[in-house]
Parts: sequence; structure tokens; C-alpha cells
Amino acid sequence: MDFDLVVRNGTVVTASDIWESCDIGVKDGTIVAVGPRLPVAPGAEEIDAEGAFITPGGVDAHVHLSQFYEATVGVDIDRSIVTNGAIPDPENFVGDTFDTGTRSAVAGGTTTVITFASQMRKDESIIPVIEDYHKLAKDQSYCDYAFHVIITNPTPQIVEDEFPRMVDEYGITSVKLYMTYKPLRLLDYQILDVMYSARKLGITTMVHAENADVIDWMTQHLEKKLMTQPYHHGTSRPPINRVICLAELMDTPILLVHISGGPASKHIRDAQTRLLPIYGETCPQYMFLLADSMRKGDFEGAKCICSPPIREDKADQDAMWAGVKNGTFTIVSSDHAPSKFNHPNGKQRGLSDGNLPYGKFRLIPNGLPGVETRVPLLFSGGVLSGRISPQKFVEVTSTNPAKLYGLKKKGSIAPGFDADLVIWYPQAKFQSFTLTNEMLHHAVDYTPFEGIEFKNWPRYTIIRGKVVFIHGEVVGKMEYGQYIRREKSLLAGPRDVWLSEWRP
Amino acid sequence: MDFDLVVRNGTVVTASDIWESCDIGVKDGTIVAVGPRLPVAPGAEEIDAEGAFITPGGVDAHVHLSQFYEATVGVDIDRSIVTNGAIPDPENFVGDTFDTGTRSAVAGGTTTVITFASQMRKDESIIPVIEDYHKLAKDQSYCDYAFHVIITNPTPQIVEDEFPRMVDEYGITSVKLYMTYKPLRLLDYQILDVMYSARKLGITTMVHAENADVIDWMTQHLEKKLMTQPYHHGTSRPPINRVICLAELMDTPILLVHISGGPASKHIRDAQTRLLPIYGETCPQYMFLLADSMRKGDFEGAKCICSPPIREDKADQDAMWAGVKNGTFTIVSSDHAPSKFNHPNGKQRGLSDGNLPYGKFRLIPNGLPGVETRVPLLFSGGVLSGRISPQKFVEVTSTNPAKLYGLKKKGSIAPGFDADLVIWYPQAKFQSFTLTNEMLHHAVDYTPFEGIEFKNWPRYTIIRGKVVFIHGEVVGKMEYGQYIRREKSLLAGPRDVWLSEWRP
Amino acid sequence: MDFDLVVRNGTVVTASDIWESCDIGVKDGTIVAVGPRLPVAPGAEEIDAEGAFITPGGVDAHVHLSQFYEATVGVDIDRSIVTNGAIPDPENFVGDTFDTGTRSAVAGGTTTVITFASQMRKDESIIPVIEDYHKLAKDQSYCDYAFHVIITNPTPQIVEDEFPRMVDEYGITSVKLYMTYKPLRLLDYQILDVMYSARKLGITTMVHAENADVIDWMTQHLEKKLMTQPYHHGTSRPPINRVICLAELMDTPILLVHISGGPASKHIRDAQTRLLPIYGETCPQYMFLLADSMRKGDFEGAKCICSPPIREDKADQDAMWAGVKNGTFTIVSSDHAPSKFNHPNGKQRGLSDGNLPYGKFRLIPNGLPGVETRVPLLFSGGVLSGRISPQKFVEVTSTNPAKLYGLKKKGSIAPGFDADLVIWYPQAKFQSFTLTNEMLHHAVDYTPFEGIEFKNWPRYTIIRGKVVFIHGEVVGKMEYGQYIRREKSLLAGPRDVWLSEWRP
Amino acid sequence: MDFDLVVRNGTVVTASDIWESCDIGVKDGTIVAVGPRLPVAPGAEEIDAEGAFITPGGVDAHVHLSQFYEATVGVDIDRSIVTNGAIPDPENFVGDTFDTGTRSAVAGGTTTVITFASQMRKDESIIPVIEDYHKLAKDQSYCDYAFHVIITNPTPQIVEDEFPRMVDEYGITSVKLYMTYKPLRLLDYQILDVMYSARKLGITTMVHAENADVIDWMTQHLEKKLMTQPYHHGTSRPPINRVICLAELMDTPILLVHISGGPASKHIRDAQTRLLPIYGETCPQYMFLLADSMRKGDFEGAKCICSPPIREDKADQDAMWAGVKNGTFTIVSSDHAPSKFNHPNGKQRGLSDGNLPYGKFRLIPNGLPGVETRVPLLFSGGVLSGRISPQKFVEVTSTNPAKLYGLKKKGSIAPGFDADLVIWYPQAKFQSFTLTNEMLHHAVDYTPFEGIEFKNWPRYTIIRGKVVFIHGEVVGKMEYGQYIRREKSLLAGPRDVWLSEWRP
Repeated sequence: MDFDLVVRNGTVVTASDIWESCDIGVKDGTIVAVGPRLPVAPGAEEIDAEGAFITPGGVDAHVHLSQFYEATVGVDIDRSIVTNGAIPDPENFVGDTFDTGTRSAVAGGTTTVITFASQMRKDESIIPVIEDYHKLAKDQSYCDYAFHVIITNPTPQIVEDEFPRMVDEYGITSVKLYMTYKPLRLLDYQILDVMYSARKLGITTMVHAENADVIDWMTQHLEKKLMTQPYHHGTSRPPINRVICLAELMDTPILLVHISGGPASKHIRDAQTRLLPIYGETCPQYMFLLADSMRKGDFEGAKCICSPPIREDKADQDAMWAGVKNGTFTIVSSDHAPSKFNHPNGKQRGLSDGNLPYGKFRLIPNGLPGVETRVPLLFSGGVLSGRISPQKFVEVTSTNPAKLYGLKKKGSIAPGFDADLVIWYPQAKFQSFTLTNEMLHHAVDYTPFEGIEFKNWPRYTIIRGKVVFIHGEVVGKMEYGQYIRREKSLLAGPRDVWLSEWRP
Repeated sequence: MDFDLVVRNGTVVTASDIWESCDIGVKDGTIVAVGPRLPVAPGAEEIDAEGAFITPGGVDAHVHLSQFYEATVGVDIDRSIVTNGAIPDPENFVGDTFDTGTRSAVAGGTTTVITFASQMRKDESIIPVIEDYHKLAKDQSYCDYAFHVIITNPTPQIVEDEFPRMVDEYGITSVKLYMTYKPLRLLDYQILDVMYSARKLGITTMVHAENADVIDWMTQHLEKKLMTQPYHHGTSRPPINRVICLAELMDTPILLVHISGGPASKHIRDAQTRLLPIYGETCPQYMFLLADSMRKGDFEGAKCICSPPIREDKADQDAMWAGVKNGTFTIVSSDHAPSKFNHPNGKQRGLSDGNLPYGKFRLIPNGLPGVETRVPLLFSGGVLSGRISPQKFVEVTSTNPAKLYGLKKKGSIAPGFDADLVIWYPQAKFQSFTLTNEMLHHAVDYTPFEGIEFKNWPRYTIIRGKVVFIHGEVVGKMEYGQYIRREKSLLAGPRDVWLSEWRP
Repeated sequence: MDFDLVVRNGTVVTASDIWESCDIGVKDGTIVAVGPRLPVAPGAEEIDAEGAFITPGGVDAHVHLSQFYEATVGVDIDRSIVTNGAIPDPENFVGDTFDTGTRSAVAGGTTTVITFASQMRKDESIIPVIEDYHKLAKDQSYCDYAFHVIITNPTPQIVEDEFPRMVDEYGITSVKLYMTYKPLRLLDYQILDVMYSARKLGITTMVHAENADVIDWMTQHLEKKLMTQPYHHGTSRPPINRVICLAELMDTPILLVHISGGPASKHIRDAQTRLLPIYGETCPQYMFLLADSMRKGDFEGAKCICSPPIREDKADQDAMWAGVKNGTFTIVSSDHAPSKFNHPNGKQRGLSDGNLPYGKFRLIPNGLPGVETRVPLLFSGGVLSGRISPQKFVEVTSTNPAKLYGLKKKGSIAPGFDADLVIWYPQAKFQSFTLTNEMLHHAVDYTPFEGIEFKNWPRYTIIRGKVVFIHGEVVGKMEYGQYIRREKSLLAGPRDVWLSEWRP
Repeated sequence: MDFDLVVRNGTVVTASDIWESCDIGVKDGTIVAVGPRLPVAPGAEEIDAEGAFITPGGVDAHVHLSQFYEATVGVDIDRSIVTNGAIPDPENFVGDTFDTGTRSAVAGGTTTVITFASQMRKDESIIPVIEDYHKLAKDQSYCDYAFHVIITNPTPQIVEDEFPRMVDEYGITSVKLYMTYKPLRLLDYQILDVMYSARKLGITTMVHAENADVIDWMTQHLEKKLMTQPYHHGTSRPPINRVICLAELMDTPILLVHISGGPASKHIRDAQTRLLPIYGETCPQYMFLLADSMRKGDFEGAKCICSPPIREDKADQDAMWAGVKNGTFTIVSSDHAPSKFNHPNGKQRGLSDGNLPYGKFRLIPNGLPGVETRVPLLFSGGVLSGRISPQKFVEVTSTNPAKLYGLKKKGSIAPGFDADLVIWYPQAKFQSFTLTNEMLHHAVDYTPFEGIEFKNWPRYTIIRGKVVFIHGEVVGKMEYGQYIRREKSLLAGPRDVWLSEWRP
């Protein structure tokens, strides 16, 4: 048969099945045949998987790239610096830009990222926002990418007129809302406005569901007591939940992002038991780390500051694994939202303003790097440690993110799907190693997962039939990544179940 | 023995016990002896209970009297009209004033009411507010009374400086907050401010826990669809809950007022199972009526408009009875908050502004009369219908409200308690009757309980040893009622259980 | 007034109220007046309570006295030894007989015990069983007593013909069933037979609800592994539950005796939430001890062997206190069922048959002494330690046991009730002390509560107006205790709620 | 490529994915390639799916074939009649034999059935039982088949010595237990014996979990009241549950078969939330029928008698669909266990012994036919009615039964899997029809699903590459079906989580 590339002799895993001794035939970037010993016309490239696992390329549905530090602290930046291409030099950037972030992604087996196009409060239209992010990403991405839009100002024009354009013209079928962070948060009334429109258009709504008032109140009172060390970032953010009620009222699917603990997980599970269209996401930091990491000396605790915070109790960590196993969490994303440690606007900001020696957690930027480690952590610490099956690994790292967000050709190994593959090392040949930040490809000067032992790592990362990462080296080009227009969610939909006589 | 009054031969009920053939000896308004055949010195008044039940006088802990219509619609009235005594003529008043409300109370077996001193948004101190309400009540009350303070503007001065004075100087140990109603509602941050101070001072916090944003959003969209009839008042107010999380965080006792349905009841029960200091209140309207009452023609549905609304589902009504039986509801109050039906600022307001013929529920004042019917409804429809025991009746209508709100001498029949008694008719002699509004003593032109059959009614109401109501006639004087300073709650207290290392 | 006895100046506590500076007037063993400064005719005895607490005498509803060791191991003893009065000498008896048990009771403030009349498998009638136990108790009891009947052979004659006689002629309105212990256990079919009749007659059914098959299976397999030390008694008895389903099916009230852990407590609470007529009992051993006590050396662990076992986890102990506070447990009983430690048929039996040095838990008699310590433990470790209120203490140790089991004149301090009182020491005068077994009045050679500090202890125990215990000395007579005929439960009743069309 | 068969142009569905315009290449009965427009060597058979759905052949994991009526009523039949081949003529057989049952299976798109080899109480070895069932099935099966073994007498020899042989020599990796039916039921002790061995050997235990005592008791009392009509079969069998506790104690996977209602479903879901290895099965009768079907006149109600009974309440039916959607039910099986209606030992038995006119439900054989309708019902009433996705349909009817029971080459469409396929009609071409029993291929004279409308039906059924059913006609041969040795479950496994210190 006429293939461009044949991957030979793998143990292919989908979310449902495992097929041993299987070849994968690729033509024009698409899988066109799977089966044992496929006949191959001369000239095709061949890769011998040597019996190792082949899994679909990772889809990381929660990645912050080229996000301006200013926006997160409520300073509306001048959009023209984007529009005019005057974006900061990556070296000076506090987090990751598209190039460094996607370079890191492919080095960790992730072949598609969904990043955020962020509306600023003053923006009265989201169309230029989307256009700007297209400019930022174009020819700057090692892997395929798509966008969520963060909504901070849901004017009637946006939810009524622009949402349809966003879906139809731009292929963006999900939005993200914040219930916390002063510069970002929406009121319940605004959340209902967004949900109302989202429901009609088949948009999936992602919600950061912490309670802003509680956090502000706690932060102020902790500061009065001089409890400002990084560790007390966690103290300031108790788990509180109300958005499920709003979603039930509006009968619209939502994803609760980055769930960190048992009580929230229980709320989601209870909602799912009742068939409410509620989906859950957790992240490796809540599965592999505990709050003690925020107590490290020399201000190193700041490296593990993210929101919601990593929890204190081993029971919360266990609940994350249980939720992955029993299906409560539909996807595991990285929430890659890094800030450099040694950078004046990075984690060091927590020491500014004379807040020595312990620092003030309120000033520390939230967020961790993780786009490169997500897939290997779940494979090594999940599959190879006997906690989850290979199929479950594929489901939560690739298939479900693709389905949930309408990436129709991503997320599986099967005819017609994009040839996005991760080929792992044959287990017998692999020597376990301990991770250091030097091994990673992001622009960030630390990893919170430093010191963790890995029992395998992606050997090849292949995107649309092209090898972009091999034996530790990124060999793809920055211009190769394509923008992916998305369809409506293949998982989520409303139920048409209502309270009383009201209908939207 | 030297008594002023002896009540002979009753079946005395407390929250725990029933004693048959028992006398009660009263001296100086206080019960000084209970026992069979008490020896009596000449000159004492004697009342023969003829074997009938004697229960402690009702304590209605949720009564709105002399509340200005303007305040409820967000118009800050000129406080000087109160301070100067220029209060409206009761005839023109849209609801009940102290005299008509307490007249109604004693006619229904209630001997103590706790009413509300309402801060207006513009008030920067609550001391004058309390003083004003003292002026409004003094010499205008047929029964004993105490105050809750409604907080709509919790400035630091109020929560830090005035709350201690409120407790110590005025004997007011509870405050009420609203999470809904634009002119009244507090933000979560403000709620935490109040709770924080309440916890330290031993104040019990009452919370009206509906979600204002949801209600506003629903109301606007229902109006767009012309769904404005009284019935859709209910549609606009789905049950939603988040305050329990705030109270757990702050470890402070709260009472969730006027619970109307099963889901909220379940939240409270779950919290109590975990020993959180959460108390619940329900009202007769949620135990005896259903939402169909809001569909009545000729705009009569408006008579049953209250918030939260009376629910549609019989299962919600059953949940209220179950909650009384299994202890979820600590108290049953009336939430007496009436507006006249035929009054331009009363229920008729829903027809104003050309909103004929169906009316617009948003304009209808919320609230029902009920201070007179609460005790008889629970006795007739509860005890005499076999749903609850006599002890449970006493517990939820008198003993628990007195304990919860620190009314140390109210709520039981025992030595040292105030001689606040209800003597019922001997059951064999009583002819059931059907209630009409003409039989009642409030200033309101309707009762939502019209047409309900009563199997008994208070024969005597006695306050501090003095008969104030007998055989259907109010014989007490308006000047007789006394203001009752309250102590800290005898039921509620914090647990000293905290999240992480934070302590107030 | 004409009293035999007046107790002066106490702080009287009922399940609902506390009255300070109160006198109690007693005539012919009955309380006839309560009130401050009661006028007294000359000649009456007076006791000055000095402001101390006065609580109703304890009612211990779960006490095993004069139970033959043989019966518990399945040897049907010759009933004629009872009938003929040839009962063993107390000195030789492995546990407590009526005289030693009730002596111990009054010394700990318990004024009424409900003990068990135990049918043996071979008995085809329960009437002689009841008669025998009357003989055993008559003139041998320091306190008042009543009987439950243990049913091990529910023939049609018994449940249909004799149950009505048991209720009407003997005033016994409760039966106890075992789901475990080979010589005692009933099959589900038999349980339904008993419940069916119990429902019709208003009998309350007590159930020991462990799973016999599970225990047998675990015990055999533990023995194979030589895990036979006392501690593994606990391992052999996991918490398992099914009787609630049977009771729901039959719509009849049951009491689950001696609940030991959180999961069972949760089952009961859930049933109560749904208003099923399910009541729960726990015991001081589950509130004050943990399974570590079974690990003590020198075979001392055997002293704490009871069934269900004391649990390992502090969370289970906490759940018992929570269940008392939130009302899940209706009563706290002692489950006084002791065996001497140094007695061949006592705890030492676990070392018989060459089972040295660790012993074999299967051979150790189950059960602890506790009738004397129950009331002081709950008062000292509950009320005086701030865990429960005085009213809650009265409710679970006296009022509720009396109500649940139809002891109409017991369980409160109020006119018409028996003058069964405990007068405590004025707290300021009391010196805390550490308990040793020498201080106790039972026939048993140890107490599992040895070493616990007590902050108060009954100063006077008064039964029907007569002081039977004073300042550590039993002054009552063995003939004084009376048999109490019981009425139907004042708490429990069926709901008349059924599955499908079936009715009994 | 060298295929024997190519199925062209289908919409292929797996439990995870859907691939449109896909071909399937088959060689020697195995799928060897999937992909669009596969190149085909001459001589291969081709089938044009015309764009229709292709799903994996159904795996029905709960089918009773050639089960002797006598065994179900407790008569131990002479095993020699099987061993000697003297099996009854199918015409005279009260239910289905292998030939009629598997003929029916393939006509409904089921390509593998797992049937039961039933030990009788007197059998002291299960090896001859398995051998006998091999004889009964050999050359008598239109489709592939495997066995579960029903255990009614778990002697030590069987659980210790024969279970390993059953797994290793016969490839049988699951057993079924009854907690009800006198001739079949095991005691809890015996259940633990089986579970203990099952855990060590990786055997999955299926449990019929009704409470025998409750059913017997109810049946006797219903008969006393002359409530014996078919409908009261349901009344006699309330939902009761305890086996989950046993499985948790033993930490061994179990499948709860034929779950019929919401409460049991909730128990399973709760267990799964805690990650207990509990799996659930439901059946089409509980998803499509209600108890009213048992009220039909002319004794037709008897046609719907099965155990557990079809429930009364629509809420229970809804709970079955919800459980399929949210993953509570791992598989949907038919529980095909039919008895003819017009047969003296069939349903008519309920009218025997002069039990006219209403019949006596106790005498009616339990069980329904359903092996042919299961797959079409779920496809038509599930997928085509919008209740479940095509992937979920494949998961519960084929993939999960195959995984749960270790059928490694069954249950998916992928390289290396058996070419067991169902090709449906292109939806546009299909005319909905109403089912009558004449259309079916079993030996039974009725179907409980008579009158239901079907929106599609299998057009081709293909087993290992061979068409066995086409356009309504069975074209396969009775000798074609093969016995499938099974491996250990691919889903279920113990957790190694224990109570206290005990380990097996």
C-alpha cells in the first residue's frame, strides 16, 4: 500500500483497546490503515517501535502561553503591542511564549495544545482578541494548537453577536470564566449570561470556581497576622463551590477546571450521578504533590504556588487518583501557567516591597510549568506504577480532551485520525532516571516535579506523520504547528431538563 | 402557698415531658411551683384548665413589625420620621405595626415576638436604629418582644465597636443578613466580616440565603417572555445555597431562615451530621401550602407571594414535616411579613403601571401574615393530626426559639420561668371550625390560611401571669409587653475546628 | 406542704431545661412539687443539695444480670436449677447476679435497670422463663428493674400466643434478637416472624446485628494463621449491616444495640433522615476506649473483649460522640455483661486448652462491666468536659431510655414522676480522683475504665424518695427494688408506610 | 492485500471511537486491517455496508440454555441423562436449548454467548458438570460460546482443588452464586469460601443478591392473604442488599447481576465511588418494561415474571438508563432464561393444582426470553432514540462483557480481534416495524417485548468472518460455534486494601 510512513510492530493503545504487534500506515499525515504486517510500497519511511507502546499524541487542553503578566494583575495592556507584533522577547517574558511552550510540549509527547485567547476588561469585542492570538501563534508553534477564549467582560454584543462568529468563523467552541481574581472574575449574573448563550450555541464553558470574596477576606486577615509565607497561599483558599447549581439551572455543560481536592470531586461525582452535564479536570500537580512543597526554604515554596493550591492532605491526593479511575475526571490537563523563579515579575515578586525574609504569598504569581511533564508523569506514575490502565491513560490525556473540545481528528489511533503518535521506549531497554529541570525544553528556570523518578519517556513524538521529537531532541520546526478549528463537543450536551415552566 | 394565680388541673407539656392533672402556681409573673393540687392561700386568682393541654406561650422568632415599605424597595427613608415619632397611622400602613401585630400574636397563643430593627444602607451606625425601634415598640406591644438587627451596611465601626454595645447594652444577640434583595444584600466579603465578629461575640447569625444574581437574571428573562404572573415568582427563585460553606470556614453558628424545600433541608441535615453549627427554620406556609396557591384567579395568587416561594412539589412540603420530626429544623417561625392586599403599596402594586390583567410578580411585595396562626396551625395540623408529638410542638414553637435566641426565662413551664402559658380547650368540648380572616386580629385584609379547619385554638393566653386573651377576645393592654434583653444562645456555639493553621 | 422528703436548693436538670435554686418535694416516693423555697410541714426529711446538679436517676436499659455462662456458649442449662432456686453462689458466679449488679448500679447513680430474661433454644415457652427471672430478681435488687426477653426460638406459639401475654400480664414490651452467636442467632425468616408480631403488639425489637457467618469464617481463618490473641477478636468482627432493610420492610421500630463505629452510625442516621423507626444505642466503652486496650500484655487485653469490639480508629470513637450530639443515638446504655478476669469460666478461659501464651480470643467470654461507671463517665467525661450539655446527658442516660421502653414514671424530675434522683457534689468542693476497681461495688475483679479521672461522682442516689447511696456507701436494702411493668414505647411507633400493596 | 472478506464502507464504532467510510479486512476469521479503501486481492468476498453502522458482534454474558426445569425447582436430576446424551427433544423442552438459543442469538446480532454450567446440590465435583455442558453444546451452537459455572455446593475440594483446574484446563474464569432460591442458595459462610478462592485465582464472582428469607416469608404471608396473582410476584421480592459488604471484606471483584432498581444501583455506584471492585449488570427488561406488564389478563402477566421482578416505578426504569450512561452498569445482558407459556412446566404451571382463575405466582417459572432482542433494543431504543451514544452501546453490549469475562479476541473492531460484526441497515432505507414473536428464532412461544417498535435491526451478523445471519434469515450452521477458553478478567481485580491486620 502507498504510505508515507509506517510505524512497525507497536503495542497500540486506544481509550478502549490494546492491539499488540500492530503496524500503523500513514498517508498525508493521516492514519489510513492499522493492522499487523501491513504491506508497504517502496519509499515509505519506516519506524520500528520494537514492541513498545504507541499511544495517541497527548492533547493538553489547558495551557497558558504568551499570556501577559500585566493582564493577570489587572493592568489592561495596550492591545496594539500585540496587534503591531511588538511582543516581548521570550528571554524577558515571565512565562512561556508559543515557541518555548510548544517546544516543551512535543518534548513531552503532547501534540496538540489548547491555549487561551484572553479578553481584557476594557475590550468590548473578542474578535480582535482572537485575531491577536492568531498572530502570536502563527509560525511560532511546534505542535498543533487551538484556542479557548477567556471572557472577562460579557457584553450583550459579545454573547449575542460575537459568540456565533467565534464558533462559526474561528472554530472556537469553548470559553473560560473566572469566579475569582479581581481583574478577571464575573458576577453570577454575568455567568448566567454566558451560560445562556453557550447553551444555545453548543459552547462548553470552563469555570475556575474559587470564591473571590473568601480568598480576599482570608488574604487580608492572614496578612494582618503576618501569615504571608508561600505556604499560607493554601490556607487562604478553602474549597468552596457553587457553580454546579448555576449550570443545573441553565442546563448547560461545564467543565470545572483544575480540581484539587476530595470535596469538590465529590460534588462533581454527585452531579454526574444525577446526569448533570458537569465535567471535571484535574492536573498532575494535584496527583503528585502535597502542600508541604510550599514550605520549602529559601523561598522555594513559591515554586509550587498555583490556584487552587496543592492540598495538605494525602486524602485529597488519593481522591484525585480515585476520580481518574472511577471516571469523575474527564480529562487531566497540565494547567501550564508558569512564571520564572528568578525574574522580577516572576515568583521573586513575592519578596518585593520589603517583604523579606518570608515573602508575601499574595504577590507571588500563580501557576506552574507542566506541559512537558504531564504525559510522562501519567504514563510513568500511573500506568507503569499500576495505578491506571494504559487505556485509561489514553482516555484522560488524549481521547477525552479531544472529544470534549471537538478536536475531531485528534485523540485516537484509528483510520482517519491525524497521525499524532507517541512511541515509548521498549520497557526492558529503559533505564529509569530522575528528572532535573535541565532536561526540559520550556523557558522556565525550574520544574515542581524536580527529583521525581521516571520509568519511561516519549522516544518519538510524531505530529501528522512527521517526527518532531526523537531521543530527547526536538527536531520539528516552529512553523509546523497548525491551528485547529474545532467542532462542538462530542461529549457534552444539555439534557433539556428544567425547573418549573421556564425555558430559555 | 402564696400565689397570685393558680392554673388548676392541666395537662402540662414541656419539650421533654407531659404531666397530667397538674397545677401551676404563679407569683409576680413567675412560675414558682408546679405539682398536683397545690395548696393555695386565699385571694389568688384561679383558672380551671379542665384537663386541657397547657403549653408554654409561643415564641415567634421571626416577625416583621413596623417595617417601612420603602426600605424593602431600597428607598432609604428619612429616619427622623421615626425618631420624631411621625410614624404612619396603622390604617395606612401596608403591613402590621407593633400594636396590631402583637394583638394578633396573643390572639394566637404567642407571648413573645422577636422583631427586626432594620439598618438602612445609609445608616452608618446601628445604635440609633435600635433606639428608634425601641421608640416604635414602647407601650405599643400586647406581648413581650425582643429585637434582631438587620445589617445592610457592616462598616468596621459597626462590626467592631457597635456589635459589643448591641450585645452588652441592648441585650441583642442575633443579627440577620440577606444574600438577596438589591437594597439589602451583602457580598460574601461582608458576610465574612459579620460572621467574624459574630463568632467572637457569641452572636447568632440569621441568613436569608437566596442567590440575588440568579433571581435577577431569571426575573429579567421571565419578563422578556411575559411570564410575569404571581405564579412565576416561584419560577424565578430556584433553591441555591452557599452560605453553609462560609459558616464552616468561619466556624460560627448560623440559622438558615425560612427553609422551603427538600434540597436545602438536606444541606442543613448533612451539615448537622458533621456537627457544623448550622440551624434551620421553616414556617407554616411551607408546611401547609403549595405553589398552586399562587395560581388563584383575580390576582389572589399574589396573596401567597413570599420569598423563598412556596414550592410546587408535595415532596418539598413533606420534607418540611420530616425535617421538623427528625430535628433538622430547630424552630418553626411565622416569618410574619405581611402586606395588605387592597392597598396601593400592598399586593395590588403588582397590578400597577398598566400590568393588567395578569400582573407582574416583581412588583408584588413579598411576605405573608402568620403571627396569629402559627401556633394553632402546628397544634391542630401537627399534634392533633398525629404528625408530631405535643413535646415536639412545644420544642419548635417555644422552647427552641427561646434557647436559640437566649431568652432565658421563656419557653418552658417550670419553676423560675415566666408564666407565659397557653391553655387550650378541652378537646372533647371543642367544635372544629374553618378559619376566615375576620376571626383574626392583625391589620391585614386576608390570611393565606383561609379555609383551613382548626381542631382547637388557644382558650387563654397568659403572659407573666396575666391573662391577655380569653375566648377569642384580646383583653390585655398595649402597654403590657416588655422588652426582653437576651443572653447568648443556649444552643449554638462554635466548635473551634479549623481549616489548616488559620485562627481568627 | 406535706412532704416526706424535700431536696433543697439544687440545680435541677431535665432533658429540656435547667432550673437553678430549686427544691423538690416528695410524698410517698413520688415528686409532688418542684419550685423554689417550697414551704415544708415539720417532720419531713431534708437534704441540702448545696446548689449542685440534681439529675434524674439513671435508667440503664441494657444490663445482663444473673445470666448463666452456660447459655452463652450454647449449653442449655437445666431450668429447674433456677426454678428450684438452686442458683449459684454469687462468689462463684462468673458475672454479676442481681444483688451485686444492682448494688453497683445505685453506687453509680443508676436507679432502674432493664435486664434480660433469656429464652434457651430448647424452651418452647417464654412464660416460665419470665417467671424464673422474677424469682431470681425478687428481694435481690437494690434498684428498680424491668425485663427484656431474649428470643432464641420464636415458635408460632410464642410470637402469636405468648407475646400478647408477655405485654399484658407481665408488662414486658421489648424483645431482643441476635443475628450472631450460634446458640442465640435467628435466621432472617425468624426475625421477620418476630417483627411481624412485634409490630402488631407495639413491642420494640432490640437487635444485635453482627453477621454470624462472617465472624465464624474470619475466626476460623484467623486461627489457621495463629492470629488468636485478644486483639484479633476485633479483626474477626467487621461492621456489617442488614437489619435496617428488614425493619423497613416490616415497618416496625427497632433499636440497634451497642453501636460501635462510624459506618453503622451513618446507616442509622440515614434511616432516621428518612423517618424510618430506627433507634440507636451506644455504650461508654465505644466512647472512651480504643482497640489498643485489647493489646495489653499479661492477657490483660482480654478484659476489653466485648462484641461488637471496641474499634481501632479514633474516628469511630469520635463518631460515637457526634452521634450522641446530633441525636443519632437515642440512648447510652452500659451493656453491662461482665465476666471475672480470674475465674476459670471468666476471661481466663481464653488461656485454657493449652492456648498459652497469647490466648485464643474465641474462647474469651464477651462483655464488660459498666453499670456503675456509665452515668459518672457521661457526666464527668461528657458534661464536665464540655462535650455535651447537661440536658443531653439527662436525655441519653435517663429520659430516653425511660421513654423508649415505656417506663412512664421514670426518667424526669417533674410532678408525678418517681423521685429517682442523683444529687452530685457541688463542683467547687469536689476533688477529681482516678478510678480503681476497689472503689466499685460489682462482683467483678476489674474495670476497663481503671485509671480514668473523674471530675464528679453521685453524692446521693435516691430511689422513690429513699436514699440508697450516700458518700460512697450503699445504704439501701436488697429488697427495696421493685419490678416495673412497662407500657408501650413512648417514642417508637410504625409509620404505616409500605412497599407496593402488601399490608400485614 | 490478501483478505478472505472485506466489509466496505461502513461507519465503524468501537467503545471509544467512530470511523466513517471505513473498510474492514478479514483473514482466517480475524480482522487484519481497518482503513479506508483497502486494496483487495481478487477472490475475496466483499460486503457493501452502504455507509451503515458496523458494530462489534454482541456478547451476551448472561444466557441460560439447556437448563433443566427440574434443577430450578430443586429436583436433582439424574446427571446420566446428560452424560448419556439423553437430553430432551427441544420441542418438549420448557426453555431454549443450545441450538434454538444460539440461532436466536445470531438473528439478533449476538455472536458470543456465555451460558451456565450448573452444579446440582448433590454434585460433589464440578468437573463432570463442565464436561456434560461441553457435550450439550458441541455441534449445537450457531455462535461462539463460553461457560460460567453455577456453584450450589462449594465443598473444600471444589474451591481448593477444582477451581484451579476450571481456570487452567477449561478456561472458565467466572462463577455464579445465588443468595436466593432454596435449591441454589449459599450461606454467607459459603459465599466467603467461594470469594476467598476466587480472589486468589482471579475468578470473577457473579451474585444473584436477593434475600431468600425475605422472599419466602413474604410469599407465605401473601398466600395466606390470597394475593397470589402474577403481579404479586413483584410484591414478594423487595430490594435488599448485603453482598457488597462481603466483597469489600474479601476484597474480590463481584458482578451484581440483573440489577432492577434505583436503590441497588445507588449501592453499586457508592461502592464504585470508593473504588471497591463492584460491577453491575442490568437487562433490557428493566429498561423497557414496568410492573404493569405483570397485571395483564388471561394470565398473560405470567409472561413477564422474572427475578428480580420488573419494578413498579418509572423512577427505577430511569435509574437503569442513568446507570448505563454514568457507568454504574458495566454490562447489559439479556438474562435469557425463558420458559414457554403454553407448556405444562412453563408459565402455565402457575395455574396448576387448581389455582384458577388468578394463578399462584410462586409456581410460575421465573425468567424471560431475550437473547435475540437485547442488541436491537439497545440500538433502536438507545442509540437511535438519542438516549446513549453509539460508543456506549458498543461498550455495554460487547466490549465490556468481553473484557469483564476475559474474552480477549471479542468485543471490538480492531486488528487481531475476531471478525465478529454486526452490519446494520443504512438508516435512511430502513422502515420501522413492530415486533411480533413470529419474527424471532428462539423456541419460545412469546416475547415480553411484543409490540415494541424497532427503528433498525441487524442486517448481517458475521462470526469470525463468516456470515451467519442475513436479511432476517439464519444462514449459519449449528456446528460453527466454537467454545472460547477465557482468560482472567481484563477489568476486574482486587485492590489489596484490608480491614485491620487480616490478609488472606
